[in-house]
Amino acid sequence: MNQSTFAKGLEGVVAAESEICQIDGQDGRLYYRGISIDDLAVHSSFEETAYLLLYEKLPTAAELSRFTEQMRSQRSIPSPVRTMIRDFPENGSPMELLQSVISYLSGSQEHTIQHSATCNCRNTLHQIAQIATVLATYQRFREGQPYVEPRTDLSHGANFLYMLRGEEPDEFEGRVMDTCLVLHAEHGFCASTFTARVVASTYSTCYCSISAAIGALYGFLHGGANEPALTMVEEIGSKENVAPWLDRALAEKQKIMGMGHRVYKAKDPRAVIIEKHLHDLSELKGDFHLYEILKELENQFRERMQEAGKPLYPNVDFFSGAVYSLLGIPKDLFTPIFAVARTAGWLAHVLEQRKDNRLYRPKCLYVGSQPVQYVPIDNR
Amino acid sequence: MNQSTFAKGLEGVVAAESEICQIDGQDGRLYYRGISIDDLAVHSSFEETAYLLLYEKLPTAAELSRFTEQMRSQRSIPSPVRTMIRDFPENGSPMELLQSVISYLSGSQEHTIQHSATCNCRNTLHQIAQIATVLATYQRFREGQPYVEPRTDLSHGANFLYMLRGEEPDEFEGRVMDTCLVLHAEHGFCASTFTARVVASTYSTCYCSISAAIGALYGFLHGGANEPALTMVEEIGSKENVAPWLDRALAEKQKIMGMGHRVYKAKDPRAVIIEKHLHDLSELKGDFHLYEILKELENQFRERMQEAGKPLYPNVDFFSGAVYSLLGIPKDLFTPIFAVARTAGWLAHVLEQRKDNRLYRPKCLYVGSQPVQYVPIDNR
Repeated sequence: MNQSTFAKGLEGVVAAESEICQIDGQDGRLYYRGISIDDLAVHSSFEETAYLLLYEKLPTAAELSRFTEQMRSQRSIPSPVRTMIRDFPENGSPMELLQSVISYLSGSQEHTIQHSATCNCRNTLHQIAQIATVLATYQRFREGQPYVEPRTDLSHGANFLYMLRGEEPDEFEGRVMDTCLVLHAEHGFCASTFTARVVASTYSTCYCSISAAIGALYGFLHGGANEPALTMVEEIGSKENVAPWLDRALAEKQKIMGMGHRVYKAKDPRAVIIEKHLHDLSELKGDFHLYEILKELENQFRERMQEAGKPLYPNVDFFSGAVYSLLGIPKDLFTPIFAVARTAGWLAHVLEQRKDNRLYRPKCLYVGSQPVQYVPIDNR
Repeated sequence: MNQSTFAKGLEGVVAAESEICQIDGQDGRLYYRGISIDDLAVHSSFEETAYLLLYEKLPTAAELSRFTEQMRSQRSIPSPVRTMIRDFPENGSPMELLQSVISYLSGSQEHTIQHSATCNCRNTLHQIAQIATVLATYQRFREGQPYVEPRTDLSHGANFLYMLRGEEPDEFEGRVMDTCLVLHAEHGFCASTFTARVVASTYSTCYCSISAAIGALYGFLHGGANEPALTMVEEIGSKENVAPWLDRALAEKQKIMGMGHRVYKAKDPRAVIIEKHLHDLSELKGDFHLYEILKELENQFRERMQEAGKPLYPNVDFFSGAVYSLLGIPKDLFTPIFAVARTAGWLAHVLEQRKDNRLYRPKCLYVGSQPVQYVPIDNR
């Protein structure tokens, strides 16, 4: 590409090669390091998945046990960070807080994470382990509840629910939460992952790179649609109201949240798994209200789109908001939970970027004013 | 460019059009919005320059007075931020702290800065005004000194020195500091500015975008070479030692810090101005030690490079470290001061990005493993 052909938003431009994530949009399949998320969702854990992303292979039992122990031992957050969370303005977004805390934590790591090409960030897993604690603590404090010290005998997902609630979740709830983290851990080159790699390409720290990525995820063109998807379901209110609501929404050319995906031409494989979890969780809770509305909406919408020759399928956001809601999580934590999970993928991309680094330094085309005289202020 | 031609680091790829900054590398000229920095350095102030960058024109006297008053009234930092600074780990970098504080401050802004395409970030100048206060306070606290409340009757540069020292600087010192901020306020598309635009392209807040940019500037492939340039001068130690030191350095193929620039094929226009200031400041302080070493080094180096047919000229970092040193500023604040200045340029780029936005979403080429079976942990 020469300077005269300028791809806005770098559309279509290849910015990196990567071995981390394969998305088969045609068949609706997603692989981390070659392993299908269908398998990871059933057999794996967030911790094993993080290991897979960072070390490029599934761990042996001994490796997983060492890795898990290391990650769990780093879940606590130091007292100054708890103060930051407590002092954080009521109207601020938890995304701004997460971005801030992660770069703050960069300063509290010894020079093992000194910014360099060769540092082994795999050994500084604080940012993966602590971000869940920061978010749970944020939620505790704004409810006027005390800090819950993380436990080391629970999975990453179960421990997150434990810290949120102050009591141990049902075993199945913990598994569902952990699986949601697995499913959000990585998804190739989105704006936040690209941001993490650009920052990492300067040999900034992995914390500073991930902090920057959170800033990108916060933007409403990027961060999950799961919050508005749940709002939509609440607005619909009942299974019976789906058809008239959808008629009106389509007539008004309203976007149906959680439907369609830039890459997937089939049902998003993550949506398939989360739907199943939503079903089982609804059974556990004895509450199929959200599930029924969503299924009705999916069916009605798909029918009409097929009639119109434009098949559109649910994406990961379609069911996940309902799952989080049944787990008792408030809506404004949905995108932050995405960040909690994606931190594993971001770190994998930071490591990959450093392996064969080149500073990101695209050009910009100057299209402004030609040189003009400076006019003294009295003559303006 | 199609997928088969992959430009590492996006080299040569045009990622944006911009009206902000023109760099004439051939003739060694730099313009902000068409106005030469030679004029800005002599006639303007950091505040006027910030206005020029943000509002795309020089202000009238009334506009400048309103803008300056607004910016100065926002210099204080709230008490929780002072606590963050006080609690920040001793071994942390001030860059990590700045990155953290800026996204933290995002949360304390009312919804005037709610992330959107249309918000007018020109009216929320806190991030420009406060970042200098954060840095000065960091330095105060680590020296065991109390917080200095910013003054509103001093220029941005003079007030920074005032907050650092707790006493008003000499008028000329204030002017030199302010000019250094003018000269670092903007320089087109570097990795940090690109980062700010990528984050802004998601419609994240301007604070979150600038926080991310600080993360990129922190990386040692990007952040200023002014700190190592001064270290080099200290190592040389005397004018007489320049020749033997240079012989050895060149024989060892050591990089001469502050020499050469990717874009400028002539002397960096900022270096020309800063050299003059260094001279005058040396006179004021009655100390030409650093100045003499640098001039000798410049001359000797230029001679040898011309003999070798590879002319190389000083860049902005060559003299600026010595200036800061004469102003009593410790070396590890040099890159953070760069951030203090560049915040104005970053914000201008954030605003420009939003005017005609497209989400940055380049592709990545998957070159990893083809799908493989998940092997249960007991069989690994």
